[in-house]
Amino acid sequence: MPETMLAIVKPEAAPGADVRQMPVPQIGPDDVLVKVKVASVCGTDLHIYNWDQWAQNRIKPPLIPGHEFCGNVVAVGKNVTAVKEGDFVSAEMHVACGKCYQCRTGEAHICQHVKIIGVDANGAFAEFVKIPESNIWKIDPGIPADYASVLDPLGNAVHTVLAGEIAAKTVAIIGCGPIGLFCIAVARACGASEVYALEINDHRRKLATKMKADHVLNPAKDNVYEQVMDATGGTGVDVILEMSGHPDAIRLGFKILRLGGRASLLGIPSKPMELNLANDIIFKGALVQGINGRLMYKTWFQMNALLKAGKLDLDPVITDRMPMADFSKGMDRLRTGESSKILLYPNGTISK
Amino acid sequence: MPETMLAIVKPEAAPGADVRQMPVPQIGPDDVLVKVKVASVCGTDLHIYNWDQWAQNRIKPPLIPGHEFCGNVVAVGKNVTAVKEGDFVSAEMHVACGKCYQCRTGEAHICQHVKIIGVDANGAFAEFVKIPESNIWKIDPGIPADYASVLDPLGNAVHTVLAGEIAAKTVAIIGCGPIGLFCIAVARACGASEVYALEINDHRRKLATKMKADHVLNPAKDNVYEQVMDATGGTGVDVILEMSGHPDAIRLGFKILRLGGRASLLGIPSKPMELNLANDIIFKGALVQGINGRLMYKTWFQMNALLKAGKLDLDPVITDRMPMADFSKGMDRLRTGESSKILLYPNGTISK
Amino acid sequence: MPETMLAIVKPEAAPGADVRQMPVPQIGPDDVLVKVKVASVCGTDLHIYNWDQWAQNRIKPPLIPGHEFCGNVVAVGKNVTAVKEGDFVSAEMHVACGKCYQCRTGEAHICQHVKIIGVDANGAFAEFVKIPESNIWKIDPGIPADYASVLDPLGNAVHTVLAGEIAAKTVAIIGCGPIGLFCIAVARACGASEVYALEINDHRRKLATKMKADHVLNPAKDNVYEQVMDATGGTGVDVILEMSGHPDAIRLGFKILRLGGRASLLGIPSKPMELNLANDIIFKGALVQGINGRLMYKTWFQMNALLKAGKLDLDPVITDRMPMADFSKGMDRLRTGESSKILLYPNGTISK
Amino acid sequence: MPETMLAIVKPEAAPGADVRQMPVPQIGPDDVLVKVKVASVCGTDLHIYNWDQWAQNRIKPPLIPGHEFCGNVVAVGKNVTAVKEGDFVSAEMHVACGKCYQCRTGEAHICQHVKIIGVDANGAFAEFVKIPESNIWKIDPGIPADYASVLDPLGNAVHTVLAGEIAAKTVAIIGCGPIGLFCIAVARACGASEVYALEINDHRRKLATKMKADHVLNPAKDNVYEQVMDATGGTGVDVILEMSGHPDAIRLGFKILRLGGRASLLGIPSKPMELNLANDIIFKGALVQGINGRLMYKTWFQMNALLKAGKLDLDPVITDRMPMADFSKGMDRLRTGESSKILLYPNGTISK
Repeated sequence: MPETMLAIVKPEAAPGADVRQMPVPQIGPDDVLVKVKVASVCGTDLHIYNWDQWAQNRIKPPLIPGHEFCGNVVAVGKNVTAVKEGDFVSAEMHVACGKCYQCRTGEAHICQHVKIIGVDANGAFAEFVKIPESNIWKIDPGIPADYASVLDPLGNAVHTVLAGEIAAKTVAIIGCGPIGLFCIAVARACGASEVYALEINDHRRKLATKMKADHVLNPAKDNVYEQVMDATGGTGVDVILEMSGHPDAIRLGFKILRLGGRASLLGIPSKPMELNLANDIIFKGALVQGINGRLMYKTWFQMNALLKAGKLDLDPVITDRMPMADFSKGMDRLRTGESSKILLYPNGTISK
Repeated sequence: MPETMLAIVKPEAAPGADVRQMPVPQIGPDDVLVKVKVASVCGTDLHIYNWDQWAQNRIKPPLIPGHEFCGNVVAVGKNVTAVKEGDFVSAEMHVACGKCYQCRTGEAHICQHVKIIGVDANGAFAEFVKIPESNIWKIDPGIPADYASVLDPLGNAVHTVLAGEIAAKTVAIIGCGPIGLFCIAVARACGASEVYALEINDHRRKLATKMKADHVLNPAKDNVYEQVMDATGGTGVDVILEMSGHPDAIRLGFKILRLGGRASLLGIPSKPMELNLANDIIFKGALVQGINGRLMYKTWFQMNALLKAGKLDLDPVITDRMPMADFSKGMDRLRTGESSKILLYPNGTISK
Repeated sequence: MPETMLAIVKPEAAPGADVRQMPVPQIGPDDVLVKVKVASVCGTDLHIYNWDQWAQNRIKPPLIPGHEFCGNVVAVGKNVTAVKEGDFVSAEMHVACGKCYQCRTGEAHICQHVKIIGVDANGAFAEFVKIPESNIWKIDPGIPADYASVLDPLGNAVHTVLAGEIAAKTVAIIGCGPIGLFCIAVARACGASEVYALEINDHRRKLATKMKADHVLNPAKDNVYEQVMDATGGTGVDVILEMSGHPDAIRLGFKILRLGGRASLLGIPSKPMELNLANDIIFKGALVQGINGRLMYKTWFQMNALLKAGKLDLDPVITDRMPMADFSKGMDRLRTGESSKILLYPNGTISK
Repeated sequence: MPETMLAIVKPEAAPGADVRQMPVPQIGPDDVLVKVKVASVCGTDLHIYNWDQWAQNRIKPPLIPGHEFCGNVVAVGKNVTAVKEGDFVSAEMHVACGKCYQCRTGEAHICQHVKIIGVDANGAFAEFVKIPESNIWKIDPGIPADYASVLDPLGNAVHTVLAGEIAAKTVAIIGCGPIGLFCIAVARACGASEVYALEINDHRRKLATKMKADHVLNPAKDNVYEQVMDATGGTGVDVILEMSGHPDAIRLGFKILRLGGRASLLGIPSKPMELNLANDIIFKGALVQGINGRLMYKTWFQMNALLKAGKLDLDPVITDRMPMADFSKGMDRLRTGESSKILLYPNGTISK
């Protein structure tokens, strides 16, 4: 085992990041050390890179970011039994306390004291990453490494889509960033009868079409309300999956939701926003769900089952692949709005 | 059968109401004619009386208001089989179309084309009222007439409390008008372990105490957030039942709700309001339910069962009883904020 | 309108059936008269034809059987508004009373006083059939007539598959008659990750393969328990859908069900049978659902959505098409065990 | 800390048990050592004492039985943070593996590799018992020690009653051993509108009456079916909770269950039994739940909330209290059928 490793580091409280040699993490008796094969970039990583308000409040440099990855186990602590050297794994990076009310009642994904690896502790944008055994997820060998590197955001999508009935339902997916695009695939695979994808960015709409959404609409131009009402005989859609966090999009979503429909909200508005609770929720008899993370570990089993069965084509979402050392180029690509999921390869060799 | 009857009438598009003789309603083959024994006043009736903005948009005078009542069947149309002359009944006053998506999938309470008797058609503030057979509800003889006259708002409470798990849960009831007070009784009867009643009106807080809420708090004076967090070990309450429609109260409600908790919203905010979706719903993993009316007719069976078993003491909520002809006095009483449920007796004789 | 029509008639309490001219049904104010385009044969029709014990207890000749069909509206009663002449329709043939506890709480499919058209009243094996408006189902024009004629059994399948979670689940379908075969299609369309089809009849196993079950097993030869346990890492399947009604098959089903799994039972055992409640249900923490008919009308909306979206290929199940007058030949075909769904065309012309 | 302690021991593969001095358990880094204050006897302990078929297959002597208790923490391993010396605790004695599908999806109560302390490892019929930290349950100080000693069977009752809707429902509790009696209390506290208790043992029926069941019936004498049907207007009860494990009782339970009702089965039939699946489950559209153990740890939070709120009077169920050394007398009492819950006090002093 080498003593140092290549890593992306946020060295201090300022924009940017370094590519550096860092010590390989030391593992304790309940930990697993993973050699990262592929890591994937999340919008959160861009927040950290840009050092925006959220990042200033949350991140304590120096930090190795990165919470989406896959790789192979290279060492295990003495108490570890769930995996062994060589196993191909990913991990749930939300580390729950195991002792709060939520953790003890099957809702560890909303643990009162959660810590996120890659946000609150060193993460996966490095050659090696340390993971507690409880959070390791063994990957079925039939699942390709690139897909295995995006289980975290795919899990957000699976959690959201399957948070209620989806089979034989009409669904509007609002916002077509990577998680929204994954939602299209998951909703289709799970029997949604009509998928409406709403997105103002041209590039993302193209991807939504590639993901085979039945209707791809641009709320900046199309009269979404009229089109949805026409297509649904005036009833509205059964389900909205809100991925944008944009107030106008959220309000539009509630407008097209049918009486008694489900609104699953995952996109984060940057500040409080105005909502017509009377018409959009109360008289409507709507069910609104706040969606956070992934169910631990029901969502992971669901993902595994869907991927292993070949039911999800995620290729269109993966727009960029680059050596991890080119991280800053990846950040530039993200800012163009013309990339979706960017994969990073620590050893510099890009291999699907 | 007389040809005319005493009735409260909104004669024209202006504040106020008349006490008048009106023709006794003619019934069709699927209708039931009921002699009203006790009627009960709802806040909606005050809106109509005051002729506020909502009333101006919705009500088409002349109209007999009133949608909470009980009485005895005096005539049935030729197709009617569910009840017969003499039966003691109340009614669900939301008349559903029976043909929309919601009606055909067990959600008639949010029918796309609902009409409300007492709002969109002549109601129960009269000696006689006409009800379609489908909406008649036969009352168990063990249930007292005064309770039978408030099944509509009690049904709102039962619908809200039982819209999710309540047994062994901590619950905050926000707003202690009649429906909020009923919620206290229902939540207690159904196993809620701690009931917090939040209300700024002194008189209503007194009633909340009489209804045996475990904690009666005044958000205008008490630090509700701190008290709830202290009492729940920092976790927050499992359930909030929002009955006030007041933006500050709604925001406070979400603040004291635990991660993964249920927020059932029935109170109607008068206009769009600001909400922190990120913290209050999404990160919190909250479940938010818009509650409208009563389930047709599951809620009615539940009410019947709870009342028949003697599990609900509603006496403290019924603060006033008067002859129906004194309707305007009732409106004055309501405006004082010192009355809760007002019962009206068409024949002038007040009898518990 | 003609006065008589061709019909299949069970004329008396004995095996067999006649092809006869019968009076065209007279409709009442709430009825719809439908000209049958395609009808489909159910196992129930064979019971009636064979005049077995069940039929002797239930059927009161003379009777026109047939409860699976589609056709066009040719006349409507004066109160009917949901459909008009020319509309392409099918119908839910379970006519619920509308007044019992189940009917008033959204469970009309298990009405206490249900009557079945084609069993308790004249049915669809005729040129014309009378249906109450409440039970008429308007068919989306994108759905082919042959598929529209099998909505009744397809609805059994949709009801069963969607009675719990199916997406990302492993499922064993036990018995591959028409409803079992439909279950394969529905489960796959709704995201089941692995579909095991269990069937001892060779012809039906071939059809199960055509329906794209992932694993087609013969319990008479294969060690189903071992194969399922191997394939699921010793866990068992998440869901069993029991379509056979055979005691051995039911017991095998419970054996391969995982701890905490769902067992949805639709197949009817002919008499009481032995079951190991301790191991198969109680210690297992299993959820067992009795499935009867179709949800009125949630299942119908689901079917419509799935068919309209082109998510179900039912072609392999339709093995025979013949003029309705050849009904007895159809019965013979059924008895061979080499046909699955047989379609009948009243006007003698077979058209897909 | 002493080196030895008084304990009840099954010394060898034969009927009976010894009272002996045994070594005080050594704890590991994740364990908690509890000084037992009160222990409670379960029917399982009688099986072990009697050395019946089940015991012969499962138990490996020498063994200290006992899995119902409360006490105070006297030592904790170095990794333990959830409790400290002096804390008043009980424990979930089903120790789940934490790694199987069920454990990782919130169903640890049906873990594939569960071990039970007091059955598969030394238990609580001793002065001290060793418990892993994960399974320790801290008891609210408002809960009396005697009640705290029966959380295991009370948890069975809470799990069963709250496995579905109970508020405003009619419920039949079949079998009035301790868990059945607890079910009466829990069902009443959680809003059941009518509780029917069915029991053939005279003494148990008296206790059922003390627990305030609305109707206490003797299936050996009363026509239970007729009485229930009369009282429910021919509909049947909404819920049956099966606690007896007796085939006749189970069959009777299904008979009185309404169409679409819930049957929660906890009592264990000693061998396979005959059931009419067609009439009792399938046509009935029944929901049947196998109930095993207690939800980890939702049920525990529910018990805590109900007990702390004073909603459960369990006194009538506790019929006997004795020094632990008198264990064999307790076994004799159990065999008489005239005792229900027997509490054992290791230090010989009986204190409520």
